[in-house]
Amino acid sequence: MFKVYDGGVCFAKGFTASGLHCGIRKNKVKRDIALIYSEKIATAAAVYTTNLVKGAPLTVTKNNIANGKAQAVICNSGNANTCNANGIEIAEKTCELVASALNIDKTDVVIASTGVIGQPLDIAPFESGLPLLAKALSTNGNEDAAEAIMTTDTIKKEIAVEFTLNGKTCRIGGMAKGSGMIHPNMATMLVFITTDVNISAEMLNKALSSDIKETFNMISIDGDTSTNDMVSVLANGMAGNEEITCENEDYIKFKSALNFVNTSLCKMIAGDGEGATKLLICSVEKAPTKQTAITVAKSVICSNLLKCAIFGADANWGRVLCAIGYSGCDLKIDKIDVSFKSNKGEIAVCKSGAGVEFSEEKAKEILLEKEIEIKVNLNDGNESVSAYGCDLTYEYVKINGDYRT
Amino acid sequence: MFKVYDGGVCFAKGFTASGLHCGIRKNKVKRDIALIYSEKIATAAAVYTTNLVKGAPLTVTKNNIANGKAQAVICNSGNANTCNANGIEIAEKTCELVASALNIDKTDVVIASTGVIGQPLDIAPFESGLPLLAKALSTNGNEDAAEAIMTTDTIKKEIAVEFTLNGKTCRIGGMAKGSGMIHPNMATMLVFITTDVNISAEMLNKALSSDIKETFNMISIDGDTSTNDMVSVLANGMAGNEEITCENEDYIKFKSALNFVNTSLCKMIAGDGEGATKLLICSVEKAPTKQTAITVAKSVICSNLLKCAIFGADANWGRVLCAIGYSGCDLKIDKIDVSFKSNKGEIAVCKSGAGVEFSEEKAKEILLEKEIEIKVNLNDGNESVSAYGCDLTYEYVKINGDYRT
Repeated sequence: MFKVYDGGVCFAKGFTASGLHCGIRKNKVKRDIALIYSEKIATAAAVYTTNLVKGAPLTVTKNNIANGKAQAVICNSGNANTCNANGIEIAEKTCELVASALNIDKTDVVIASTGVIGQPLDIAPFESGLPLLAKALSTNGNEDAAEAIMTTDTIKKEIAVEFTLNGKTCRIGGMAKGSGMIHPNMATMLVFITTDVNISAEMLNKALSSDIKETFNMISIDGDTSTNDMVSVLANGMAGNEEITCENEDYIKFKSALNFVNTSLCKMIAGDGEGATKLLICSVEKAPTKQTAITVAKSVICSNLLKCAIFGADANWGRVLCAIGYSGCDLKIDKIDVSFKSNKGEIAVCKSGAGVEFSEEKAKEILLEKEIEIKVNLNDGNESVSAYGCDLTYEYVKINGDYRT
Repeated sequence: MFKVYDGGVCFAKGFTASGLHCGIRKNKVKRDIALIYSEKIATAAAVYTTNLVKGAPLTVTKNNIANGKAQAVICNSGNANTCNANGIEIAEKTCELVASALNIDKTDVVIASTGVIGQPLDIAPFESGLPLLAKALSTNGNEDAAEAIMTTDTIKKEIAVEFTLNGKTCRIGGMAKGSGMIHPNMATMLVFITTDVNISAEMLNKALSSDIKETFNMISIDGDTSTNDMVSVLANGMAGNEEITCENEDYIKFKSALNFVNTSLCKMIAGDGEGATKLLICSVEKAPTKQTAITVAKSVICSNLLKCAIFGADANWGRVLCAIGYSGCDLKIDKIDVSFKSNKGEIAVCKSGAGVEFSEEKAKEILLEKEIEIKVNLNDGNESVSAYGCDLTYEYVKINGDYRT
């Protein structure tokens, strides 16, 4: 239904991007600011963290795209601009600088920040950096932009897909950052998606809001919900398809492509969790309700004890049952089956709520792989869902024991 | 109001205990079974884990003390007897062995197990061990018993207090185990308390149930709620005080002593969390409701990111604000003050929801101590509470990456 390409936020028609080091990170030369520009004003939608403590950029973005329109995205790493007395002022000034560099309206800017909370953010690096950033915009700039938004991420996270709507070639590209403080609820880490699909603001919002429930909201790295999470989509309509204004066949096709983009970015984010050595996927099947499936899957993927066990390739399935048990759902424990699966095969470890004999050797072989699926069958309905996470390692502790210095 | 002594479950009149290695742990010689005996039948109360997956011993204990009476406690480490097909049968057989060794009724036994989930538990070590265990009972046996219930614990956890009720000397002693999989809800880890106070089953239940809400339920080591948590109290009445049957002055005195015992054991458990190097106490003050105080304190004490920061002695207070923000409570963020406190002093890091300048050097000095208080003032009411936890360290990952082998 769609083809996957190398590429990111410049894959869709009319989008350019850039990323460079402007000095927000004092002691590092890593790129720390990213810009995305759409030559045509785009329909915009975004979802935000549910944390009561919110980064100032989120408030400004929410105001800016209240009319469903945006033309540029600016994002810095190294400082979250959160819990700062003058945070809103700095974020608004930054939008003005973007507007003047690109000759667009200052309210057509999506702004985001990621990094340390509660440290004053200076406007100077933005003043000197923005003209250069605007100048550097190109259709090859997606990698620089994806690098500029990284914090403790170890890999750039990009994805691009192509599909057709009634004969018209349409594209979606995206980039994400996210490695720690990830336990989204209603919104998530920083994800920027661009598409040339022609779609109304209402339908774009609908597609995004419903999709994140089974994608970004199902990731957990460490149970901490960030203050700065945001997923935004810009759709500039340059594919030339008939505008999507209702839940027609085109909408379903678009949603399916968007879901693929989001799921791909989810796996990249979870697998690159701070200090992670493995991507964990907990698939819950045959749940009585969707909410039960979601709650059980998240409870399992969030268990520190299970995350440590998988790091040690230890088939300690009791911890899976334990996490299911404290999920708060009304469950029939004696119906539950659990198995571990990877490229090396699948092994049943628990049937009807009790342990079964299994080869520890085979289990070890399966759990030594880089991508592990924990399959939970509740045998009590027809709903299913997957949650995404990673193992808990020495490196996570190291990274977070000394993040600010 | 009461005096603190060295001692444990044998401190109160009429209680003896013992602990030895009976072979449940195959490859270790550590004591793995503990027995407590009251020469007079005692009033009994207990609270249990809310995990839907429950250890078989908990079900058996619940039945046994339904009449409010018990005379002995048996507890093994090394195997949780949970998710085993014949778990109930084994637990009941163990009670029979205890009854026959002590010449008491098999339904007057409190039984508990702790260790790996889902591994068959053999009755043989109990059969050979119980006669020896009964023979070894003594008023000095509390330390052996406290050692026998340890799993990944690094220190024995005991406490003893003495007070008077209307001229009669009364005593409470307790022991606990708990190091990982600790995030109790309505009940907690394994705690055994003995007292010679004369109190009705109803009032003993009332005292225990209300006290744990602000003690054991406020501990979190890793966010995982065990399947085998239990706190039990045996009160044999041998102090000779007038039986407590209502909320009179004696009840208040008893409850205050019990609260001291429970709080002391809480701190011992949290400070000895798996891999922990520091005890963390999050004190929330001036909350609009008790529930808000509880939710905020637990949200902070559970944050992996904060736990890592404190391990690294990094005054990353943004993570405190972040955890408060995602607690789910309706809060006035711009009223919140945060400070860090230890034996080395106290330092304010956040006022009215925004950062204040502080000496990083002084903060480091404070955070390098072994007991750290994170003070959160919501400035929005009169309720307060403390939560207990520990830092997240390399050692935690190591212990739990390879627990079963």
